[in-house]
Amino acid sequence: MSPLQNWFRPEVLKMKGYTPGEQPKDPKTLKLNTNENPYAPPSAVLKAVRRAAGAQLRLYPEPTAETLRKRLSKVYRWPLEGILVGNGSDEILSILFRACVGKGDLTQYPDLTYSLYPVLGEIEGARLKEVKLDSSFGLDLGKLNPQARLTLLGYPNPPVGNCFPLEDIEAFCRKARGLVLIDEAYVDFARMNCLALAKRHPNVIVLRTLSKSFSLAGARLGLAFGHPRVMGQLYKVKDSYNVNRLTQALGLAAFSPAGIQAAGAKVSRIKKERERLGRSLRALGFTVPQSQANFLLAFWKGKPDAQNLYKKLKKNGVLIRYFSHPRLKDALRITVGKPEETNRLLAELVKLIR
Amino acid sequence: MSPLQNWFRPEVLKMKGYTPGEQPKDPKTLKLNTNENPYAPPSAVLKAVRRAAGAQLRLYPEPTAETLRKRLSKVYRWPLEGILVGNGSDEILSILFRACVGKGDLTQYPDLTYSLYPVLGEIEGARLKEVKLDSSFGLDLGKLNPQARLTLLGYPNPPVGNCFPLEDIEAFCRKARGLVLIDEAYVDFARMNCLALAKRHPNVIVLRTLSKSFSLAGARLGLAFGHPRVMGQLYKVKDSYNVNRLTQALGLAAFSPAGIQAAGAKVSRIKKERERLGRSLRALGFTVPQSQANFLLAFWKGKPDAQNLYKKLKKNGVLIRYFSHPRLKDALRITVGKPEETNRLLAELVKLIR
Repeated sequence: MSPLQNWFRPEVLKMKGYTPGEQPKDPKTLKLNTNENPYAPPSAVLKAVRRAAGAQLRLYPEPTAETLRKRLSKVYRWPLEGILVGNGSDEILSILFRACVGKGDLTQYPDLTYSLYPVLGEIEGARLKEVKLDSSFGLDLGKLNPQARLTLLGYPNPPVGNCFPLEDIEAFCRKARGLVLIDEAYVDFARMNCLALAKRHPNVIVLRTLSKSFSLAGARLGLAFGHPRVMGQLYKVKDSYNVNRLTQALGLAAFSPAGIQAAGAKVSRIKKERERLGRSLRALGFTVPQSQANFLLAFWKGKPDAQNLYKKLKKNGVLIRYFSHPRLKDALRITVGKPEETNRLLAELVKLIR
Repeated sequence: MSPLQNWFRPEVLKMKGYTPGEQPKDPKTLKLNTNENPYAPPSAVLKAVRRAAGAQLRLYPEPTAETLRKRLSKVYRWPLEGILVGNGSDEILSILFRACVGKGDLTQYPDLTYSLYPVLGEIEGARLKEVKLDSSFGLDLGKLNPQARLTLLGYPNPPVGNCFPLEDIEAFCRKARGLVLIDEAYVDFARMNCLALAKRHPNVIVLRTLSKSFSLAGARLGLAFGHPRVMGQLYKVKDSYNVNRLTQALGLAAFSPAGIQAAGAKVSRIKKERERLGRSLRALGFTVPQSQANFLLAFWKGKPDAQNLYKKLKKNGVLIRYFSHPRLKDALRITVGKPEETNRLLAELVKLIR
């Protein structure tokens, strides 16, 4: 076989690729590892999918999902041309990197955040800079380089789920020479958001997803809000028909009054359960920073150690997330589930820890 | 507003982007412009979508669509690790360009072919080479540069729908130093295919889609078959959850015996109708090269000229495709529809031409 070097870019050959969280097939597994919503999607959404499953699937979808974007434009009071929808927010991140980041271009993000950012940067041969969060996972925004081509951060920022102060973020956006992507995958579980900030600063893009608050991780629908001139460049890079008909139909139903209301009710329950889970874990001796997302990062210094706790839980059918990152060796990330799921998790933990 | 130059790669700023075919919203339009299948998708497929529209949409899909790929592996007798599924074959083309083509890398394709290839090349800053088809739209494969990083061609090749001789393609693949992508979007309407060739040559990738022969353009499902080591590199670049749950479910049903049989029956009808449409157009004075796809490229030297014929047809509710390419100024590309659609098209044409 002739050498791969003739066929692939060196940047790709040397990279490892992103490792997604485990997707176990056993339906008895308590799945608290990839921050999915424990509740079913709004029934209006499921009905819309069934309606869309007809002869019209033979036709290409709307290339820019105009009908859905018009709905979003009303709901979010955002100019139509400043909205881009993607095959999950991951696709929008890919589009952004392809459009912005050339070989050697400086791309920065917190050392703890969504671990896809460096992978996308590696594909482009970017110069990557991790900005270290402080010991309480705050971000000194003075450490960010205003000359960077692209800056990414989560609001809330995983895997802790904390929000950096809006005024600090805005101060940085004001002086940033490049684009700033604020990833709001979990923002519906938080108190504030950055849309107003993106409206004031044309170099800011806000990214959303239906995977979390709308219980639609399986449908792949991401949204980006930005300045029309900026989004126009991203449109050049996106595939013509990147969001299929079923997902466009389902997105339209999700942003109907009934869909928004149903999702909001589930979000309230999850936020309440997040507080109870946090209190319970702290009572067991975990250190749990405040989270504004649908997960908690719980630190554990007891026996067995965090990694073994993860393994033993998995053996008992409870899947949470353990990261190999050096700053997270004592940490477990736990998705907030239904109350009965919290109970099962806590019961398993009590049996294991000493 | 601060300059876009600080925010985007120069390759992206200077490009125009791909123009997809028109997607009219008026359901009375006779839509023969984007090579969709006139028949509904197999009923087994629509049932599978309805079944998948449930609570499980809250969960991420299988990252590599393993269940679907196992089915494909059986149907196509291809190693599981040599199969990649994508959000339409367009996404697989994007992945391929991102993985293979660096700035300045030579990328070649026929001057007449799928017009997305140069757009994807422009994004990467590739050195693009168009290889001119001869006057009967054949390809002298001796004109292809064996040193190219990536060579792309259609089998059948749009917009004519002809197939270059398999032995010529294979002779080139044998000496090619880079990868060869054979785009078989329309191959189910043709007599032969290149899968055996891809099995013999690890530098060859065969691309398929469910948009045409399976009537599923709206669902976005593309398939790539290649050597496992080659596909392993493409996997590094693809988004983790690139094919949603609904499309995975629908793909599985499409490749069930019932799905394959239903699609095959429609393909036979379309092939028969293609011959009738060709004969009828020739009888009207069009020159129509043989096509092995679900469309015909019809040349017209009479009055009104081809572009005006396209415009007048559109005004009368019949949408076909006209390209601005200089070699196609006298040509109309017409998707093969149902017999009654052919009749309507022919009736409209008869009224217009003189």
